[in-house]
Amino acid sequence: MNAINSGIEARLFDYLLHSLQDTPYYQLLGFKLVQLGPGLSEFEVLTEEKHCNPLGLIHGGLVMSIADAVMGNAIRSIGVNGVTVDVSVSVIAAVPHGSVLRATGKVRRAGQKMIFAEAEVWCKDRLMGQAKGTFYNQGPIQY
Amino acid sequence: MNAINSGIEARLFDYLLHSLQDTPYYQLLGFKLVQLGPGLSEFEVLTEEKHCNPLGLIHGGLVMSIADAVMGNAIRSIGVNGVTVDVSVSVIAAVPHGSVLRATGKVRRAGQKMIFAEAEVWCKDRLMGQAKGTFYNQGPIQY
Amino acid sequence: MNAINSGIEARLFDYLLHSLQDTPYYQLLGFKLVQLGPGLSEFEVLTEEKHCNPLGLIHGGLVMSIADAVMGNAIRSIGVNGVTVDVSVSVIAAVPHGSVLRATGKVRRAGQKMIFAEAEVWCKDRLMGQAKGTFYNQGPIQY
Amino acid sequence: MNAINSGIEARLFDYLLHSLQDTPYYQLLGFKLVQLGPGLSEFEVLTEEKHCNPLGLIHGGLVMSIADAVMGNAIRSIGVNGVTVDVSVSVIAAVPHGSVLRATGKVRRAGQKMIFAEAEVWCKDRLMGQAKGTFYNQGPIQY
Repeated sequence: MNAINSGIEARLFDYLLHSLQDTPYYQLLGFKLVQLGPGLSEFEVLTEEKHCNPLGLIHGGLVMSIADAVMGNAIRSIGVNGVTVDVSVSVIAAVPHGSVLRATGKVRRAGQKMIFAEAEVWCKDRLMGQAKGTFYNQGPIQY
Repeated sequence: MNAINSGIEARLFDYLLHSLQDTPYYQLLGFKLVQLGPGLSEFEVLTEEKHCNPLGLIHGGLVMSIADAVMGNAIRSIGVNGVTVDVSVSVIAAVPHGSVLRATGKVRRAGQKMIFAEAEVWCKDRLMGQAKGTFYNQGPIQY
Repeated sequence: MNAINSGIEARLFDYLLHSLQDTPYYQLLGFKLVQLGPGLSEFEVLTEEKHCNPLGLIHGGLVMSIADAVMGNAIRSIGVNGVTVDVSVSVIAAVPHGSVLRATGKVRRAGQKMIFAEAEVWCKDRLMGQAKGTFYNQGPIQY
Repeated sequence: MNAINSGIEARLFDYLLHSLQDTPYYQLLGFKLVQLGPGLSEFEVLTEEKHCNPLGLIHGGLVMSIADAVMGNAIRSIGVNGVTVDVSVSVIAAVPHGSVLRATGKVRRAGQKMIFAEAEVWCKDRLMGQAKGTFYNQGPIQY
């Protein structure tokens, strides 16, 4: 994985990179880290037949999963573990398989207790999904 | 799959059963249909290591995916295809792996254009997740 | 106000009744308490022209406000103050003015930190709105 | 009202300005239009005691109402009527009364059927609320 470090501490970046490479759910779905910055993360996934729903389109759950992933990792990029409390996702357009989805997550406000984030999912220059999430602050990552 | 038909037309039930068995995303995640009734669906999944997040707990995306799946199929059980527009999910408790999650979906109102549904995700007698979703009515299923 | 006590401690009920009668936002919008039970609350509002949006229908914000109110008070009925963190509302049908909206709130799970609730908004026998909310547990009500 | 036109057709701007001035729910809550641009709207409200909840803070319903209002008017600024289907709001920080809230709405994607928008609510330089909404496209505004 050739992920880009856009400005977080090198040791945290390495820790997260290894942790992400070993994350079973990301391997299962084919999520790849593209970039981590302070309060930001970017993942991509090549959509394949395995991601399809009964109608032959990409299942909404994939869009939700990658939105949750980029928000969770945007939070980890500031050195904190966040546990998903609520995620609200809009599936703006149907995603065909064989395309690359790129998702970005951003921390909007990190409080002592609650952390608020948002995510976007793009296919080239087209917005496919939009999400906001609330996470519980579980304290600093030990690395 | 020994799914229960709790009151939908036999030919629709058979059609949906086959369609669900062939759905790649459900196979990937291990979703099994338990029951379909009029405006209702129930799925289960045995949580495994492959579903885990970087913290070693079940990824929120799995809860979102099964919530979306049971709402979508509750809609299909009334003979209509619905496309996910919005899903809002609360992850109420952390799910350990090695447990069986059972999710139920229910249609709350099926309009000409918009269909509103809700879902719950249980682990034995414990509510783990709660969701509501809005779907666009794509018209009758051809079967 | 002739609100019904469906099973909460009399002193807490009296405290909440007075607090609700003195709540400015409820007076502004015309919300009336119908019932409080353990983990449950019910409010009603007579929709009037003052609640209308630019299209002459009841503004979505009224449905959101009453949904938030019944969830917050369902939480107070178990002796706890909850602060709204997230609310997701579906406006299922357009509400004409001159009708009575009845909203019910229910606590789904009250944890040490997060409390999960849901709400429904009805006009006679028609479901007009559906909501779920997440609240932060601020500790016991002092009464 | 000295609202700013940031680039929409003058006749549509005038029409919307009059329509907003006559909107009962905005008068009730004290919402004032600050600005309309193509796919954008900005409102403000001076928070007063009348907006308070039983805890003496601004009721979450006010934040939801203004978020819904700015998203609905961002849609109207592109010449289209949108009906609220779903709104998901995060209340990021407690709002004291006596402060000015400023809310901005933005259309993210306007489709033939569904329109997706987002909103932010600020108090000076502090993000107090964040929302996303889905609206049904009711067709062009007649003006």
